[in-house]
Amino acid sequence: MTAGAITLALDAMGGDAAPRMVVAGADRALDDHPDVRFRLFGDGAILEPLLKGYPRLRARSELRHTDEVVADDAKPTTALRQARASSMRLAVDAVRQHEADAAVSAGNTGALMAMAKVLLRTLPGIDRPAIASVMPAAKRPVVILDLGANAECDATNLVQFALMGSVFARTVLGVEEPSVALLNIGTEALKGDDVVQQAANRLRAGELPIRFEGFVEGTGLMAGSVDVVVTDGFTGNVALKVAEGTARLIIDRFRDTLADSWAAKLGVLLARRSLGRLKAKLDPQRYNGAMFLGLGGVVVKSHGSADASGFANAINVAVDLVNGSANGRIGEELAQYAQPVSEAAS
Amino acid sequence: MTAGAITLALDAMGGDAAPRMVVAGADRALDDHPDVRFRLFGDGAILEPLLKGYPRLRARSELRHTDEVVADDAKPTTALRQARASSMRLAVDAVRQHEADAAVSAGNTGALMAMAKVLLRTLPGIDRPAIASVMPAAKRPVVILDLGANAECDATNLVQFALMGSVFARTVLGVEEPSVALLNIGTEALKGDDVVQQAANRLRAGELPIRFEGFVEGTGLMAGSVDVVVTDGFTGNVALKVAEGTARLIIDRFRDTLADSWAAKLGVLLARRSLGRLKAKLDPQRYNGAMFLGLGGVVVKSHGSADASGFANAINVAVDLVNGSANGRIGEELAQYAQPVSEAAS
Repeated sequence: MTAGAITLALDAMGGDAAPRMVVAGADRALDDHPDVRFRLFGDGAILEPLLKGYPRLRARSELRHTDEVVADDAKPTTALRQARASSMRLAVDAVRQHEADAAVSAGNTGALMAMAKVLLRTLPGIDRPAIASVMPAAKRPVVILDLGANAECDATNLVQFALMGSVFARTVLGVEEPSVALLNIGTEALKGDDVVQQAANRLRAGELPIRFEGFVEGTGLMAGSVDVVVTDGFTGNVALKVAEGTARLIIDRFRDTLADSWAAKLGVLLARRSLGRLKAKLDPQRYNGAMFLGLGGVVVKSHGSADASGFANAINVAVDLVNGSANGRIGEELAQYAQPVSEAAS
Repeated sequence: MTAGAITLALDAMGGDAAPRMVVAGADRALDDHPDVRFRLFGDGAILEPLLKGYPRLRARSELRHTDEVVADDAKPTTALRQARASSMRLAVDAVRQHEADAAVSAGNTGALMAMAKVLLRTLPGIDRPAIASVMPAAKRPVVILDLGANAECDATNLVQFALMGSVFARTVLGVEEPSVALLNIGTEALKGDDVVQQAANRLRAGELPIRFEGFVEGTGLMAGSVDVVVTDGFTGNVALKVAEGTARLIIDRFRDTLADSWAAKLGVLLARRSLGRLKAKLDPQRYNGAMFLGLGGVVVKSHGSADASGFANAINVAVDLVNGSANGRIGEELAQYAQPVSEAAS
């Protein structure tokens, strides 16, 4: 690993359209980042002929053959025990061995997180890593975590997520003093959730370098009323997928509506360029690439249904994380505040 | 109460734009349901002059004066203890005393649920009532519950919600064999949620008259892959509000995009009628009116920010519930299956 040049380990076999979209996506990422190098882990018999179509990528890649692949429906524990030489595990292990700066996979999320935890360990001061992503909300991009690594969380987990999300917004998104809120069901709720209330009390105490703004509801999340939204992995995952599903629903309805009269069809023709720009802006592939935060190495998870452009975006996220030294800085801040974070727990 | 004619008790003082939108909404509801009668609970000094502008409504309404109002930020317990003659409480009490077939309020949700539980009691076989609504998903309208009455739920609560949602879809929406699913974070999740897994096991056992389809993710909810989606009140509330927020975000982006060139503006002019129809179809006021299920009486909660058209829709929901004898039928089915429901709990 030469200083300055970034090397990424790619799980070439993970994802619905793998390995084709992994290879095409990596090639596409070279448009933005021509200096990046790749280590591709996967079936050489498939990858070798595929790479022949991408001479530029071929020149910047090293192929590491393995037959083993983690199944999409494999339980994390099974994947850990059985697939010791899987393309996914080898990619994560390359980060552990400092042969790569980051790993990117579109495979089984649970297995990837389990491997990342075992091989890279969690950072000091962090009990559980979280999955974070950046959502395109109305006022600004919003960092949201956890998106599914921890279905159940206690208040300490949420406080640690708040710290990680805040550091991430500062180091990678360049937000100076990111505002942070806990996702909740509003003040009018019949019954508050104890975990969320406890976490809020600790964050209000102000011992951590977090600009805590209290609670935000689902509408506030999408309005972009804060920079970072913290929640448990169950709620976060549902929120992300409801947003995806609603966006798809409304765009489809628009399309149907605009096809229902000749005047409307002509109108669409005239507005074609503007609508094309909007479609590009709302394309979920643009926001592909979820970060695993709180680990001793950078791992980025691509959506399983990513296409080449989506996978290229996941690679871009990994490059940004490495360039921003996000993980190192999160580690430093966590080490500095590890005491208040765990004290808050007592 | 004459057989056939429906009487509704309205909390005239609840909601951001009350009492104006309550009165205007009730008048508007008479367009669809000219036979409905109203009992309006609220400040006579404000309501009397207001009603003068609505002679048709005035003729079908009985005004019950009270000075007391439940504050929007009042805790449920406080509202129960202090506001004994509040417009909200009197409206719910009218249902208890069989002076009205249903109560409608746009006030404090938590207080309304607390009063409904105390005054109307839960149906036999139900531990906790739930808030349900119908969401406009892609393939069909989807019944979703709970939307915030119970931030934390156990597996028995979820099983009971599944039964209530199923009966509601049959009796009010007229779906013959409604498909029911539990909201979850997908099979690839690192860690399942125990409560959801337990509830699924009980529903799979098949002792209840529920067509259980397993799990659905946030995307499946918005796609409308089943008729009824069951979840805890925390997740349900977040899901509903994220869907609302995403819809608003995308519609705003469309508007901005279509205003960014002369060709696009001309296009919009041509497509105006179609876009107007779509806007009407997606208008959240159209879907206003959440049902409290599992109580010994019908209570409908309007969104606090409802306008007259939204409040009229909440009234329509109450009329549909009364006409469909939804509550009675839910009670009968619950009585019949109370044993399996509680046995399942053991």
